[in-house]
Amino acid sequence: MELIHLYFSGKRAKLLEELKDFIRIPSVSTGSDGRKEMFHCAEHVARLLHQAGLEHVQEFAAGGYPIVYGDWLHAPDGPTVLVYGHYDVQPAEPMELWKSPPFQPEIREEKLFGRGASDNKGQIFLHIKAIEALLELKGHLPFNIKFCIEGEEEIGSPSFSPFLQANPDLLQADWVVISDTAMLRENQPAVCYGLRGLLGVQIDVQGPAMDLPSGSIYGGAVQNPLHALVHLLSSMRKDNGRIAVEGFYDEVLPVTKEEREAWAGLPFRDSEWAQRLKVPELFGEEGYTMLERAWARPTLEIHGVRGGGEQTIIPSTAHAHVTCRLVPEQDPQVIFRRLEKHILAHALPGVKVTVTAEDSGYKPYMTPINHPAIRLAAEAYEHVYGVPCHWIRAGGSIPVVETLARQFEIPVVLMGFGLPDGNVHGPNEYFSLRNFDKGLLTLCYYWLQLKESL
Amino acid sequence: MELIHLYFSGKRAKLLEELKDFIRIPSVSTGSDGRKEMFHCAEHVARLLHQAGLEHVQEFAAGGYPIVYGDWLHAPDGPTVLVYGHYDVQPAEPMELWKSPPFQPEIREEKLFGRGASDNKGQIFLHIKAIEALLELKGHLPFNIKFCIEGEEEIGSPSFSPFLQANPDLLQADWVVISDTAMLRENQPAVCYGLRGLLGVQIDVQGPAMDLPSGSIYGGAVQNPLHALVHLLSSMRKDNGRIAVEGFYDEVLPVTKEEREAWAGLPFRDSEWAQRLKVPELFGEEGYTMLERAWARPTLEIHGVRGGGEQTIIPSTAHAHVTCRLVPEQDPQVIFRRLEKHILAHALPGVKVTVTAEDSGYKPYMTPINHPAIRLAAEAYEHVYGVPCHWIRAGGSIPVVETLARQFEIPVVLMGFGLPDGNVHGPNEYFSLRNFDKGLLTLCYYWLQLKESL
Repeated sequence: MELIHLYFSGKRAKLLEELKDFIRIPSVSTGSDGRKEMFHCAEHVARLLHQAGLEHVQEFAAGGYPIVYGDWLHAPDGPTVLVYGHYDVQPAEPMELWKSPPFQPEIREEKLFGRGASDNKGQIFLHIKAIEALLELKGHLPFNIKFCIEGEEEIGSPSFSPFLQANPDLLQADWVVISDTAMLRENQPAVCYGLRGLLGVQIDVQGPAMDLPSGSIYGGAVQNPLHALVHLLSSMRKDNGRIAVEGFYDEVLPVTKEEREAWAGLPFRDSEWAQRLKVPELFGEEGYTMLERAWARPTLEIHGVRGGGEQTIIPSTAHAHVTCRLVPEQDPQVIFRRLEKHILAHALPGVKVTVTAEDSGYKPYMTPINHPAIRLAAEAYEHVYGVPCHWIRAGGSIPVVETLARQFEIPVVLMGFGLPDGNVHGPNEYFSLRNFDKGLLTLCYYWLQLKESL
Repeated sequence: MELIHLYFSGKRAKLLEELKDFIRIPSVSTGSDGRKEMFHCAEHVARLLHQAGLEHVQEFAAGGYPIVYGDWLHAPDGPTVLVYGHYDVQPAEPMELWKSPPFQPEIREEKLFGRGASDNKGQIFLHIKAIEALLELKGHLPFNIKFCIEGEEEIGSPSFSPFLQANPDLLQADWVVISDTAMLRENQPAVCYGLRGLLGVQIDVQGPAMDLPSGSIYGGAVQNPLHALVHLLSSMRKDNGRIAVEGFYDEVLPVTKEEREAWAGLPFRDSEWAQRLKVPELFGEEGYTMLERAWARPTLEIHGVRGGGEQTIIPSTAHAHVTCRLVPEQDPQVIFRRLEKHILAHALPGVKVTVTAEDSGYKPYMTPINHPAIRLAAEAYEHVYGVPCHWIRAGGSIPVVETLARQFEIPVVLMGFGLPDGNVHGPNEYFSLRNFDKGLLTLCYYWLQLKESL
């Protein structure tokens, strides 16, 4: 490890410049404005993999944006590990809230600011550079490794499953390593063993054929689509924070006593977060702490409501975008049917309500925490950070995790280097440089100890 | 009247071209994009008044857009009548829904399409041209007339009251005539004797300091401003259509037995309107017909809800724009205080809710229906249209009506030539050419009979 330390110290400035180059490519996968840049970014990733010493580097045209693949398979007796990541990023809007432009990365106070700095360019970059270092320093690995870096994670990975079906053996591995989650806080590394699933729903309310003046003969005499919409959105949650949709919690596994105790011991204060978010108080389902609500309980959140505007009209239509985060053993299809039933049952007279699932949804995921590949992740963190590693779950969703786990019946190791206040998906996203340095070392330790640990 | 008939027949094509020129000026008073055109339009109106033979034509700089004034005061023994109208129009958006461009007027099927065709350029044009005809044909009027045409009606006439205070005698008259309301249907003229008042309210919900990902440690653990907003918007109306704000109906005058009977006899079918608006059914306060709901009952309508969007975030803020239409004897200030109390009482924990009145609001208005100036309006309609005139109220608000009535303690005659499906404020606004022709004759009859009727 001494040698590796020296290696990265010497290259730090150069590596940071390389990461900045990666972030400079505005590879936004939502919408079609970034189309050209997306292909440009896929090429860039392929070049990075090639540079690292990986072989069979290829950009697979998977229907949408390319899936970039590379491998090193010269350890016939060793295990095979798949590293997954993504090169696409969330849109940067609203631009005016960024202190430095999202695609002109800038270092301030030991943080690298830029869209994708943390999610996921910074973290996938660590993986590539760790392998590059090992191949450069040792010339050989005691295991086989495959990289798969896709460009549609932020839009729900629509091409990934079809790609897996079309190339059934390509990504076959003994386990997967993904760095796309957050630590609990700065210098408190954590292995993540659970992710929530996701179900996206669009609700459309159709009222009169045209916008109507709210005076005239209409105001008070025609159902207002916005009234109908707020009525049914409001009906979906009780005052105590519980979702009111019948059967919503039927399959939810309770938070175990062990988890409750372990999470209560984590260095995490609800009150501190209320202050940090500048809200008068936190709010959520009665009987649960903030972490329990976010990690182990399902949600129903309204992300957007659209309808009408400044004019004094009864709008012709109103729309809402809602998602549910799902926990084991909830199934997105089953939840959708219950949600749809609730919404249609709460449709007010005088309008037409339609409910559409945005896609087939993603199932929640739990890792078998006693697998040696996962235990090793904790050991690597502890070795480099010098503090005990936490075992956490995450409130977010990484669709491919469940897909890969199910496809190959293998565990997924989620060892993230982001931070919960890293502004992922928002303005001023950053990647902590401490985690940049320690992340490289942690990953190298992981790979070097791997053969012994199994 | 024969001569007048002939006069307008001969000039029809020319007058329609003149009206089109008037509509071509995109005098949108909301926002500041139309600023230049607004002043251009005021000049245009001044020119029309001058052309008509009116004197003392002047554009008053009233703080906002000019108020255009003109008079003819050579009948010392006659009464003085004030004609009020407005040259500003509503924004034309959404443009793509117009069959012909909003500011390129076009005649199709005996309808003149264009923004302002009915509200209010077409109708104020009739008034100017009726007086022009009488002065041209007779050289003299048996009464005094003042025209006041403002440019801020569509934004609530903010400069009008201050203008009245600064020029207390300028608009002094024995009554006011306004053509800015709708008939009940084609060829069914109606005198309007009641208008609703208006109270506009903005509701802002402030949640976390920044948009938060709905996964991570936030989703389910932080109050979502959109949830809080739909909860309180939904709380404002009961399932039976009644507004749930305490005290909301306290001062409302009941619909009289006479009005109920009279309105039930009007050629107006609720079912026909449901079909025309393409809604499954009408909806409103239990126990009232469509006309009663729109004319004699107060409302609370949500015009716009804003917050979040397509991304899976908990938005930092959410906003709603709400108005109440008020009926006699409701007072906007009193209703605002009750509304504010309700909203703050229904604010959910974890967010900050603020309520702002958009302005001081407008009181509802009722005309004394037995005044001869009003009776004459009905007679004029009946003479020209050859059918009985209806006595109606209107669901809309014309702020200055109540202002003028209170200032001079005089009645206001509301004789409109619009149609309820004339798409006022929406795309494809039109003015019926039948009402263009008959409107000119009705107004001329009104002025010619005026001296005898008093």
